[in-house]
Amino acid sequence: MGEYAFDTDTEVTPDGDDGEFTAEVTDRWNGTAGAANGGYLLAMCTRALGQRVPFPDPIVVSGFYLRPGAAGPARIRTEVMRSGRTTAFAQATLAQGGKEVVRATAAFAQLGRDGLEFRDASPPDLPPPQECLGVPLDSFGLATIAGRIEFRAAELPGWYTGHPTGRPASEFWMRFADGRDADLYTLPLLVDSTAPSVLELGVTATTIELTVHLRAQPRPGWLACRAGTRFVSGGYYEEDFEIWDSGGTLAAQSRQLALVLPL
Amino acid sequence: MGEYAFDTDTEVTPDGDDGEFTAEVTDRWNGTAGAANGGYLLAMCTRALGQRVPFPDPIVVSGFYLRPGAAGPARIRTEVMRSGRTTAFAQATLAQGGKEVVRATAAFAQLGRDGLEFRDASPPDLPPPQECLGVPLDSFGLATIAGRIEFRAAELPGWYTGHPTGRPASEFWMRFADGRDADLYTLPLLVDSTAPSVLELGVTATTIELTVHLRAQPRPGWLACRAGTRFVSGGYYEEDFEIWDSGGTLAAQSRQLALVLPL
Repeated sequence: MGEYAFDTDTEVTPDGDDGEFTAEVTDRWNGTAGAANGGYLLAMCTRALGQRVPFPDPIVVSGFYLRPGAAGPARIRTEVMRSGRTTAFAQATLAQGGKEVVRATAAFAQLGRDGLEFRDASPPDLPPPQECLGVPLDSFGLATIAGRIEFRAAELPGWYTGHPTGRPASEFWMRFADGRDADLYTLPLLVDSTAPSVLELGVTATTIELTVHLRAQPRPGWLACRAGTRFVSGGYYEEDFEIWDSGGTLAAQSRQLALVLPL
Repeated sequence: MGEYAFDTDTEVTPDGDDGEFTAEVTDRWNGTAGAANGGYLLAMCTRALGQRVPFPDPIVVSGFYLRPGAAGPARIRTEVMRSGRTTAFAQATLAQGGKEVVRATAAFAQLGRDGLEFRDASPPDLPPPQECLGVPLDSFGLATIAGRIEFRAAELPGWYTGHPTGRPASEFWMRFADGRDADLYTLPLLVDSTAPSVLELGVTATTIELTVHLRAQPRPGWLACRAGTRFVSGGYYEEDFEIWDSGGTLAAQSRQLALVLPL
């Protein structure tokens, strides 16, 4: 057991030699609907897959959400699809009560330290965290995850004050409330840990699929984040999320497709 | 057999009752390395999955690329992971010579016609196709796909003229050369059918993973596209791609993670 909530709550235990793991989904990372956060389950799957491959870094993880997850035991079946010279591909199926909840596919490698660097974007331009505001914890209802992860923004979100802004985009600081620094394995959780941007349009959502690119090992400290939705149509929307570390490096970039739901 | 190249070349034939299909990868959709285009293989997988689910519209497809595909026979094993009230989830494994080439996971549903619409982006602002330029076919070397899909842009790409611009982003028109109109099933191919944006940085790439969101059934006619890379780091980069239909509606949005390779 790790000393931090993330490590404790994503622990996976090998069960036999067939690549199966047991795990315990806790109720500490629930979203507003009272179900386990999708990013939390994806991080758990990524951790199981990391034990099956010979490369240190998850570089991309895609999770499909078949059913809501809930606090209680889970079983994770894993398959190494290919372990090549530079890249390993593996898949996890997380089930509860015999029913599949998440299907996660990932590639692992070793992120390079040299080579071509190019960037056509800047980190969010935020006031220092100590000059920013947090949303009071008791406004998140069933979303216990709000107690695990701290947010700070220059102004409070419109949905919180009862006046959705009509602009589903925001920038803010984020860190684990218990002081754990982020690493690559925490990023699939962190990119999915905020209230959906579409709350500013007066609707909410359930995730169908979430793809996370893990681009750099984050440096310690507050993470600067940018979230936003550009298209709502046909009953669905995408949400993009960027996490930048304290040195101004992009650590993760994610996009999810979600089904629009009434508030 | 369809009358158009896309339909003929993505045909999949059920083999028994276990959700297996046979298919023939043709050499008409090769990229510059002489391997089958990744989007082409993803479209083939999507077509097989579409035969297994009770919903008409693929809404998101994620493909992991384990090995290069090549002209020749392929076998596609499919699994319906869940078929629910509004959404079905299914997965395909495309193998050649007994080795897995692509693992594709998808969700299917029925795209809505009413409901909330929001857009914080505009279609590419391009001169009409007849006033745009195409890159001569013989500059694509082994990339037979260039003969299947027409491109038109306001100016020729820097990589083509021998002067990479240093700006890995572009806007252009696209359509099937044989007159086939695009539909949802063609979009996984079309989002991956152009030269990588990073050619403008003097490098090339191989795709690790490609996620495609299928947002609307495209109207007939030329498609306006926007491609670009914002981050190259650690040996990898992402490429984003948007396809807008002739009525100014976003039809597809995709992102891939690719490994940087020397030219």
